Amino acid sequence: MKRHLISAADLTRDDAVLILDTAEELARIADRPIKKLPTLRGRTVVNLFFEDSTRTRISFEAAAKRLSADVINFSAKGSSVSKGESLKDTALTLEAMGADAVVIRHHDSGAPHRLATSGWIGGSVVNAGDGTHEHPTQALLDAFTMRRHLTSGTGQDLAGRRITIVGDVLHSRVARSNVHLLSTLGAEVTLVAPPTLVPFGVESWPCEVSYDLDAVVGKSDAVMMLRVQRERMHAAFFPTEREYARRYGLDGDRMARMPEHAIVMHPGPMNRGMEITAEVADSDRCTAVEQVANGVSIRMAVLYLLLGGNEPAVAASRTATEESK
Amino acid sequence: MKRHLISAADLTRDDAVLILDTAEELARIADRPIKKLPTLRGRTVVNLFFEDSTRTRISFEAAAKRLSADVINFSAKGSSVSKGESLKDTALTLEAMGADAVVIRHHDSGAPHRLATSGWIGGSVVNAGDGTHEHPTQALLDAFTMRRHLTSGTGQDLAGRRITIVGDVLHSRVARSNVHLLSTLGAEVTLVAPPTLVPFGVESWPCEVSYDLDAVVGKSDAVMMLRVQRERMHAAFFPTEREYARRYGLDGDRMARMPEHAIVMHPGPMNRGMEITAEVADSDRCTAVEQVANGVSIRMAVLYLLLGGNEPAVAASRTATEESK
Amino acid sequence: MKRHLISAADLTRDDAVLILDTAEELARIADRPIKKLPTLRGRTVVNLFFEDSTRTRISFEAAAKRLSADVINFSAKGSSVSKGESLKDTALTLEAMGADAVVIRHHDSGAPHRLATSGWIGGSVVNAGDGTHEHPTQALLDAFTMRRHLTSGTGQDLAGRRITIVGDVLHSRVARSNVHLLSTLGAEVTLVAPPTLVPFGVESWPCEVSYDLDAVVGKSDAVMMLRVQRERMHAAFFPTEREYARRYGLDGDRMARMPEHAIVMHPGPMNRGMEITAEVADSDRCTAVEQVANGVSIRMAVLYLLLGGNEPAVAASRTATEESK
Repeated sequence: MKRHLISAADLTRDDAVLILDTAEELARIADRPIKKLPTLRGRTVVNLFFEDSTRTRISFEAAAKRLSADVINFSAKGSSVSKGESLKDTALTLEAMGADAVVIRHHDSGAPHRLATSGWIGGSVVNAGDGTHEHPTQALLDAFTMRRHLTSGTGQDLAGRRITIVGDVLHSRVARSNVHLLSTLGAEVTLVAPPTLVPFGVESWPCEVSYDLDAVVGKSDAVMMLRVQRERMHAAFFPTEREYARRYGLDGDRMARMPEHAIVMHPGPMNRGMEITAEVADSDRCTAVEQVANGVSIRMAVLYLLLGGNEPAVAASRTATEESK
Repeated sequence: MKRHLISAADLTRDDAVLILDTAEELARIADRPIKKLPTLRGRTVVNLFFEDSTRTRISFEAAAKRLSADVINFSAKGSSVSKGESLKDTALTLEAMGADAVVIRHHDSGAPHRLATSGWIGGSVVNAGDGTHEHPTQALLDAFTMRRHLTSGTGQDLAGRRITIVGDVLHSRVARSNVHLLSTLGAEVTLVAPPTLVPFGVESWPCEVSYDLDAVVGKSDAVMMLRVQRERMHAAFFPTEREYARRYGLDGDRMARMPEHAIVMHPGPMNRGMEITAEVADSDRCTAVEQVANGVSIRMAVLYLLLGGNEPAVAASRTATEESK
Repeated sequence: MKRHLISAADLTRDDAVLILDTAEELARIADRPIKKLPTLRGRTVVNLFFEDSTRTRISFEAAAKRLSADVINFSAKGSSVSKGESLKDTALTLEAMGADAVVIRHHDSGAPHRLATSGWIGGSVVNAGDGTHEHPTQALLDAFTMRRHLTSGTGQDLAGRRITIVGDVLHSRVARSNVHLLSTLGAEVTLVAPPTLVPFGVESWPCEVSYDLDAVVGKSDAVMMLRVQRERMHAAFFPTEREYARRYGLDGDRMARMPEHAIVMHPGPMNRGMEITAEVADSDRCTAVEQVANGVSIRMAVLYLLLGGNEPAVAASRTATEESK
């Protein structure tokens, strides 16, 4: 694996399967009474958040702590960064403080890439969402969730599985990362969105595009609903709320037309009544909560693989435990 | 003990005495140079605060860390919660992340109860103050403080002790929790408040009500002054600040009329000159600072008993230390 | 050493050299894969910040965590402190919670001194910057950086070295602390500032004052540029931005006239184009990034010496590791 995780598009199939398999292994310790491994003891993970995102921040924080790393939260709001300090100065500060990994969330697409390629940082950079660009750990946890439901297990990819992603694709880094990763893993992806919310240049993406949810729902192994950003609802290119829900929302009727084994996914938090009805959100087929749990396992795997070593994660940690005795 | 701590009213006498005795045991390690026990290593405690309360948050944080738990602070301000995410979605997120205990502070009375009874959460819920309802760990630390001063020690309850609680009872979760717990422990409680600040239905509470502080101060074993919320001072039903201090404040003269062994309590932070004069606040009889220290011991005991096991806390932890060698 | 670190002016030469030598020792572990020492396990360090300063806060946090202390961040914004709680009540709270050290940042000059001498706190107080008064750990890390570049190593002071400090000395706690510490260590300090930004009473400080940067730059072993606080730029006594840069900024030409071995220092974050040009900021002679790294070592040394013991830091920690087996 590379030293950084910036983009799902960068991952080879082998990289992706390694991360998924490692997460599978690490997920097992979540069932133990003591969920902690000593693997990253003495390492420092900095959460550098230029945008608020409590969920993503605590998911990385929980992942790092389960691996016994020290975590330092650096919210760029109210810090000297907001007083005009450049990303460079912030990066040099974190580097000087000995950060082994910097988990960065930034409103600008490309900021994590800049951080990783600048030479400012000796440690690993993990993209926790940048602008409308990518959110690779979200795509990995989604793939992990699909693999658990739609394949026979570890080592597998998603060859031939049909995944439908529905909503505001234009502004969605989740959609973008998923399209790339799912395609790498062999899945067939269809995007469904209002015409005004399909990104320019989508014809070069490895996926199909449809404007008709009813046409594709019946042949999907997984339907992933994107969160509607209500703050963007009033833009001219957006249908009304009611119209949006009618045409692009998932309700009980549409879910009933999905194949029996198919799942409903959502990155959360859900807008019940908007892109998903409460009935669907609360049904057994909706994996939203499972996705959150899987997020911790994926982030443990990513941190482990970037910082930890080449041995299998749990075996390695077992050794570390032995040594610490 | 139950799996959650939502309300002081729920505690049986045996529960309460068990918590107090456990806290007594754990308080002893505060005198050691290394104040840390390995008891909750690998467990995750989430502080889920919908209201700012730095004091309560760091008290729980210190308690959890002394027991070697990992702590994740989740301030609901600025998080997706404030963007309309429901308590349910937040709860499911924390559950998915493997929180072993959720310490919740919420402006709505009843939110912790909803969280605990919803089935959304597999771990323990601890109420750190909800609306005007309850603040059970505050009542426990108050009882702990009283027991240390007014009885001969562990195993004891407060049978026959006369406790007076003074101030804005109407809005006080501290008063409510104390009335219930103190009554369970056998104490005789008198509330003293302006008539407009006595809650509706107080006649069913296990306590007396008086409007005359001077009439009861002389026969109180402890006088607990409630903090005046200045932001409520301008409401029509509130006397003027000066009038309030004169009738319901504790000054040196009133303190002099208390029995010699009696103590003055305050949950902090104190409004010197308002409900308590500086002279009383700084006197040897005022236990405000001690109460804060006792708060850490009580919260250690609560977390220990909810998460830890059935053996005596310190003995158990000693064993855990042995095992970790 | 004393129990607190309030002011660089309080440090004897022996104190200062002990801190620098200890930091030198601790800096070595930053090169190890596991950067953590068990020295302060079970101790609690509270970061009590009345002013935002993410950089200083995370430097202390990283330092404390590398020594295995528990860290509790207490931002006084939004806490009951901002609702009128006195410094005394906050201090008593932290004391009651068992803080072994309180790292305090405060907008009022003198607040750390008050905290340390009040008797409210049993632990150690470390000044992390108070008003325009002092910032002793900054001066220590600056001295550490100079010693590494300008002397032959540990045990040394800075006797005879010529240090020039340039900028808004009037409002700079960094300048104040540096003048005192550098003088204690034997250096010859010259302040260069616009006449309106020289503090009243500077004639009693152990340093020279000049208004002409060009006159001193050629005979300086280190030139320390102070950060311009842009929010003070519009005050009447301040030159225009362009004028300031021209007369008191460090550019490539001025740097070229410095002796070959001389270094450029800056406490960060730098205003490129203002007090320092990008060319100088990014040159090999600028130690700004190194200073940040040295900050962690200095803060480890200070916490270690205040809380830890009298033995050499790393040896002591080695012993602690042995014992923990």
